[in-house]
Amino acid sequence: MSVIAASVDERLRLAKDAAREIGLLDSARKTALLRAVADAVEAATDEIVAANAEDLERGRADAIGEALLDRLRLDAGRVAALAAAVRDVADLPDPVGRVLDTRTLPNGLALQKVAVPFGVVGSIYEARPNVTVDIASLALRSGNAVVLRGGSAAQSSNATLVRVMRDALSAQGVDPEAIQSVDDFGRDGARALMNARGLIDVLVPRGSAGLIETVVTESTVPVIETGAGVVHIVVDASARADWARDIVLNAKTQRPSVCNAVETVLVHRDAADRLLPELLASVIDAGVTVHGDEATRATDSRVVPATDDDWAREYGTLDLAVRVVDDLDEALAHIRRYSTQHTESIITDDQSAADRFLAEVDSAVVLVNASTRFTDGGEFGFGAEVGISTQKLHARGPMGLAELTSTKWLGRGGGQVRA
Amino acid sequence: MSVIAASVDERLRLAKDAAREIGLLDSARKTALLRAVADAVEAATDEIVAANAEDLERGRADAIGEALLDRLRLDAGRVAALAAAVRDVADLPDPVGRVLDTRTLPNGLALQKVAVPFGVVGSIYEARPNVTVDIASLALRSGNAVVLRGGSAAQSSNATLVRVMRDALSAQGVDPEAIQSVDDFGRDGARALMNARGLIDVLVPRGSAGLIETVVTESTVPVIETGAGVVHIVVDASARADWARDIVLNAKTQRPSVCNAVETVLVHRDAADRLLPELLASVIDAGVTVHGDEATRATDSRVVPATDDDWAREYGTLDLAVRVVDDLDEALAHIRRYSTQHTESIITDDQSAADRFLAEVDSAVVLVNASTRFTDGGEFGFGAEVGISTQKLHARGPMGLAELTSTKWLGRGGGQVRA
Repeated sequence: MSVIAASVDERLRLAKDAAREIGLLDSARKTALLRAVADAVEAATDEIVAANAEDLERGRADAIGEALLDRLRLDAGRVAALAAAVRDVADLPDPVGRVLDTRTLPNGLALQKVAVPFGVVGSIYEARPNVTVDIASLALRSGNAVVLRGGSAAQSSNATLVRVMRDALSAQGVDPEAIQSVDDFGRDGARALMNARGLIDVLVPRGSAGLIETVVTESTVPVIETGAGVVHIVVDASARADWARDIVLNAKTQRPSVCNAVETVLVHRDAADRLLPELLASVIDAGVTVHGDEATRATDSRVVPATDDDWAREYGTLDLAVRVVDDLDEALAHIRRYSTQHTESIITDDQSAADRFLAEVDSAVVLVNASTRFTDGGEFGFGAEVGISTQKLHARGPMGLAELTSTKWLGRGGGQVRA
Repeated sequence: MSVIAASVDERLRLAKDAAREIGLLDSARKTALLRAVADAVEAATDEIVAANAEDLERGRADAIGEALLDRLRLDAGRVAALAAAVRDVADLPDPVGRVLDTRTLPNGLALQKVAVPFGVVGSIYEARPNVTVDIASLALRSGNAVVLRGGSAAQSSNATLVRVMRDALSAQGVDPEAIQSVDDFGRDGARALMNARGLIDVLVPRGSAGLIETVVTESTVPVIETGAGVVHIVVDASARADWARDIVLNAKTQRPSVCNAVETVLVHRDAADRLLPELLASVIDAGVTVHGDEATRATDSRVVPATDDDWAREYGTLDLAVRVVDDLDEALAHIRRYSTQHTESIITDDQSAADRFLAEVDSAVVLVNASTRFTDGGEFGFGAEVGISTQKLHARGPMGLAELTSTKWLGRGGGQVRA
């Protein structure tokens, strides 16, 4: 069993050293390593569930509520699912070593741009302990070491999961320091990660808007911002009634707590009489509280008044803001003002409206006639999802393993000097 | 002539609005726009040179030194070169709209990942006024608006160049707010840029290590770090004597002030007797001061003693640190400790040493048997260079126009909802 270094700084240095070894492992070796991690997690089910019981007990004592307790809970079935997810990642194509560009200079110097691991990936996250295993396996598959800072609510589960994974690495003859946790340093651990320039290459926060905002604002390490989604659907004048109804219902109710669920629907005035009664009835009958402007409230008496705050809210619940707009221009202006640039969709039969929407909406994913729920690494066929980037640097939209790599240029010459 | 907004915040908002218009211009339109900018710059030569004279006079009064005065100076020839550079950028392929990935989901939803402009590019830079025109033209070619914060030493030149470019945009019927300067706000202008989350999409600092460090540390806007180069050449046991001599001489003396010039040479002990005398004589005869370890000093009496500081220094001058190492492991450990991960090169005839160096050195550009001076956007064939990124996020190594774009996913469906 590996000993855990005493200071945050020492752990970060050990992770950086271990990253060199992990970064040079070939694809088959990394696959074998991750399968061993999956087996170890599964073999430690009792231990993990027992540690999780401590977290649940503390959560109950702290009255964190049933929803959070459920997110925190690990039973034998969930541990098995965790291990299965690691096996899936083990079998994903290795993103390291891909040749992304090739150039030969006039003097014969041959250049190749290749994908390389970042080195050390840091992650600060909340609540669910499965993120611990998730991020660690994605980092290892892409040749990176990982430093984790999970939520205090899951501290016993996380500590056990990290120990089990580190021991699995040791058993495979790989430096266990490639997986580090700084949970035991509380806020100081998070602060150290955010300021570890030169030791951590990229930091991926996962959790609430508040957590992400803190990391983006305070970190001097480069950050990939994930997640916040004030997502819009525009129902255009020419929208098909059944598509509008089905897509809005799906985007709102299929899983309201996630970032790609719709929060605001903007209905073209010319379509309101034709579509809005059925659309509102469909979501309200499904248990959704609709917060509407005056025109929407006039359509269905069950609609509650929307305040200005509603347009900017990521409900994450069975709540939906609905507004009738004069035209596409007003819809686009509304989106510019309130969108978090995650995902927007338009329901339309008008090609020029669709083209304009695709060109002008500045979001990670812009859709025509489809549910916003498709913004997802799994749905996009990436096999796994690191998160959904809402920034424009490095990665935008669903991130797969490729987004956990950087590049370097390799040049092979024969004595070339610059004239 | 366009009126300049009074507050920084207003300028940033106007730039963001203008970015939407610039982002939708097609390639031909952007080419025409940049040619008009080039013509306008050339036509305003007298005005620009007169404004520059004010800067030079202030510089002389402040005794900034001949080297800085030369970097600051714009004469008719240099203005013509500036305009020519803008014309070159005008003719570069448009990086916007490239289709980078295509996927069709099993349900028929057709996805495309396309290159889009960032929106608003910010730049904080020093000294040379040509950077003002350089960055603005690169930003416009890639469909971005730009907000500039130049050095106070060039404030009159920069103000005139910005005014000329803005007027050229107006004359072309394009919103002049796409080019903004916040020079007149001094440090407050720089601070505003670094905190303009939501208004500036990416910030590119160009200048001294101190400037870049400040921007990286203080900015909450995503930053692309450029430039610092403590660059190494390793002369392996098997190195050809003529290549070692010629490459080191070229990498040190061809243009010592730039970031891809070599600063430290590490010589394998087994090659020292054979190569070092000639190598040292060659650079010392060219006017280089060599700072060496004991073994190097024993080889040539003109070598001055190196201190620990020398290994970490980016001289930018005709100074070179030279150390004799026991083997490739010691060379790699030295590079890990002191390199800024910009460019390293090995001179070797040993394939396994070359392969190991390419795999293990974690720098933006890793070369075998070639001068480090090739790390350059122009040399790489990018046609223009935004800077040389020394970070791993988004861009690494020489950045061309493609690195001034982000991506978005476009999806065209027919009523798809998620199961």
